[in-house]
Amino acid sequence: VSAREPSRRVVGVFDSGVGGLTVLRALHAALPALDTAYLGDTARVPYGTRSADTVTRYALQAARFLASREPLGLFVIACNTASAVAVEAVQAALDVPVIGVITPTAERAAAASRAGRVGVLGTRGLVLSGAYQRALERARPGLSVRAQPCPLFVPLAEEGWTAPDDPVVRGVVARYVEPLVAEGVDTLVLGCTHYPLLEDAIRAAVGPEVTLVDAAASVLPAVRAVAERFADGAGARASGAPLRRYYVTDLPSGFRAVAERFLGGALGELIEADL
Amino acid sequence: VSAREPSRRVVGVFDSGVGGLTVLRALHAALPALDTAYLGDTARVPYGTRSADTVTRYALQAARFLASREPLGLFVIACNTASAVAVEAVQAALDVPVIGVITPTAERAAAASRAGRVGVLGTRGLVLSGAYQRALERARPGLSVRAQPCPLFVPLAEEGWTAPDDPVVRGVVARYVEPLVAEGVDTLVLGCTHYPLLEDAIRAAVGPEVTLVDAAASVLPAVRAVAERFADGAGARASGAPLRRYYVTDLPSGFRAVAERFLGGALGELIEADL
Repeated sequence: VSAREPSRRVVGVFDSGVGGLTVLRALHAALPALDTAYLGDTARVPYGTRSADTVTRYALQAARFLASREPLGLFVIACNTASAVAVEAVQAALDVPVIGVITPTAERAAAASRAGRVGVLGTRGLVLSGAYQRALERARPGLSVRAQPCPLFVPLAEEGWTAPDDPVVRGVVARYVEPLVAEGVDTLVLGCTHYPLLEDAIRAAVGPEVTLVDAAASVLPAVRAVAERFADGAGARASGAPLRRYYVTDLPSGFRAVAERFLGGALGELIEADL
Repeated sequence: VSAREPSRRVVGVFDSGVGGLTVLRALHAALPALDTAYLGDTARVPYGTRSADTVTRYALQAARFLASREPLGLFVIACNTASAVAVEAVQAALDVPVIGVITPTAERAAAASRAGRVGVLGTRGLVLSGAYQRALERARPGLSVRAQPCPLFVPLAEEGWTAPDDPVVRGVVARYVEPLVAEGVDTLVLGCTHYPLLEDAIRAAVGPEVTLVDAAASVLPAVRAVAERFADGAGARASGAPLRRYYVTDLPSGFRAVAERFLGGALGELIEADL
């Protein structure tokens, strides 16, 4: 044991609740050796109904908490609402890179659209904030954007009612997405971390010609680049299983079952935290 | 104008958001001359995910606010979650009667059940709190109670997707209520102020033999009794249209349209309040 233990660097993933686990799931799948720590602010979910000041304050508390507990190398804001308002404030408070989901997701969607018609599916709060609409316009001026609030998608995903052949699922998804398809949208942003659970049902409703763009795939290049810098430098782990730690600010009954549905696998160490 | 203007007494109705308007709607229908003031804490909705301490603090702020603005004669806590935890604390803070929805609703349901089998439909938070289960057991010891969380009902009601012949509505309602009916439940508590908008759909799913019990009808006798005392004493209004005033702590875009669907008519004076 004469070799120095290389210092670990951890990718922190923050969300208002359980939804960000779909982003983490994609990171685990693409970068299985990555050390990760998740923080879900389950006590204060949902953020979509709160003011920008409040959401920024919550995000700063979350970032400082995670930075105090883990040797962060990167902080990912997986929550769309927090990404819409708090990326700059959190970046100013942390000395590691901070990335939100909206800008990279909007850039991928803008690049993917052939006809220049992009649809955005999101919570009512996110759609009303206009954050995706502005990010898409910045990414590709003149793009036609149609944003659709989908308030039933979050409870559907949390209930586990996601099968494309479930008539309730099919009916709800059709009602939200068919008007967008009818208007010629060729690219659809899944603007909420819950929606990847409904991806098969959305795919069935829109057909094979529409490109679906979600946050997880959009943040992956930035996470990969940072993770490669860890590996090049002193950040490489000597060996052993990667760190996968989960902090939540409240642990409601039944949380683990819902969380494992979002993560797509067993949740490891689960720690209740007071921000 | 030598006669003294009789002092007005106002029935205050408090809810975490827009749902309590279904209670107010029933009061307006039954007691059209009643002076009412509504307070919806739309900035902090939903309460169901918050701790009992936090909900109690919010309810106290709401009660003190409304008492400072209106000559209250009665304070109705229309929110099921707040009724579950905060009635006693609010009663201790106000010098007018305070009634919550859970105890009177549970008492009516317990009395209505022939077979002694009662179902409770509610939000996940309310069902997990066990408040209706305890109130029903107090009202009729030995009663069989089956509580069912219905997370899709609130967004269905807020979307205005409530028609009994809408296949999405029919599918969601069937999934939640059919297991209760199969178990022999003969009385069903609509344990959330949003659910009266789905009453026709629930009725269609359960058939004519099941008694539906909602909060609005349950608080009406107490409100009527207090209102009769106003009328007997100095509280009678001389003449003119009744006061109908609406306070909200946040005014999200589209609020008035959703609120008028819950109220079943035009919303009058709408005031943004900072508690």
